[in-house]
Amino acid sequence: MNPKRLEQQIAFVREADKLKTIDRQTLLTDASRRENDAEHSWHLALMALLLGEYAGDKTLNLLHVVRMVLIHDLVEIDAGDTYCYDEAGYRDKTQRETAAAERIFNLLPPDQAAGIRALWDEFEASETPESKFANALDRLQPLMHNVFTDGQMWKRHGIVKSQVIDRNRKIADGAPDLWTFARSLIEKAVDDGHLDP
Amino acid sequence: MNPKRLEQQIAFVREADKLKTIDRQTLLTDASRRENDAEHSWHLALMALLLGEYAGDKTLNLLHVVRMVLIHDLVEIDAGDTYCYDEAGYRDKTQRETAAAERIFNLLPPDQAAGIRALWDEFEASETPESKFANALDRLQPLMHNVFTDGQMWKRHGIVKSQVIDRNRKIADGAPDLWTFARSLIEKAVDDGHLDP
Repeated sequence: MNPKRLEQQIAFVREADKLKTIDRQTLLTDASRRENDAEHSWHLALMALLLGEYAGDKTLNLLHVVRMVLIHDLVEIDAGDTYCYDEAGYRDKTQRETAAAERIFNLLPPDQAAGIRALWDEFEASETPESKFANALDRLQPLMHNVFTDGQMWKRHGIVKSQVIDRNRKIADGAPDLWTFARSLIEKAVDDGHLDP
Repeated sequence: MNPKRLEQQIAFVREADKLKTIDRQTLLTDASRRENDAEHSWHLALMALLLGEYAGDKTLNLLHVVRMVLIHDLVEIDAGDTYCYDEAGYRDKTQRETAAAERIFNLLPPDQAAGIRALWDEFEASETPESKFANALDRLQPLMHNVFTDGQMWKRHGIVKSQVIDRNRKIADGAPDLWTFARSLIEKAVDDGHLDP
């Protein structure tokens, strides 16, 4: 055992705990409070295990997907959560998150820092089958929460149907069947008066 | 796509959201509040990815470990969190959790319900290399949180060093090097006056 290496790993594990304090613009399904990034990441990982059969590419590496969703939001410890419909926030999102990745991932030993950075870059680029599926889940989960909480967060932010469609159509790239399902959820939300048409 | 199957999977994913409301007897490392089971499960999965090199069996299947830690506490949606030093609570823990497993896992299609039940049984039995490592992480993480928060939860519950040693020695079965590390944390907590000797 290399004590310096373990010390770096533990420092990272300890730093990662802060993800539990980064709140998102999504409510829990009982609408009791906002969800945080750690809970969201756990939920995506669970979904990856259970919904893998809907991935567009059936040969994808599920462990790779799970790794990606577990680490995809760690940069928000420094950069904060940028609401997906916040155009101003998106202008400097990449810059803020890249600086965060530099600091946070480099708490790890160099080999693991490089590995986790490559995973995060892959998630952000969304070009491989694994990252496309991971990104599909990252959109589907908050969409489901919005529908299950009668669109409370959509209403609070004045979001309308076309914005929800534009934001979520990327689900089709990673999981075509889940996009069909997502479309039915969106239509139902409009029919029920929870999303402005 | 089989609509009935997807409906069952989504019902499970929705039910799983409740894990975010099950609080544990562990504080976040900033001591701001208690941690919940979903956050804890995410943290264990992240640790599995980063600390796999310390597993006693170097040939273990990491995806299997990650699957196990992601689902290991779902039964607590019904059964609640049983504090690891609560002897009375442990008397009927198995009975409460088995009933919960029956209800919750069977929301899934039968093949996935059987798979997740087998994973949970394996975690509970702690006999395979993967489940021993998963159980080691499940003990190490709250131990670290206790040390990082100056033993606040130990003090609140009147826990002493011998209890912490007894509870955590199982770490050695799954990850001998991490047990060495855990022992050093426990000694430091005693030296610092955060754990009663």
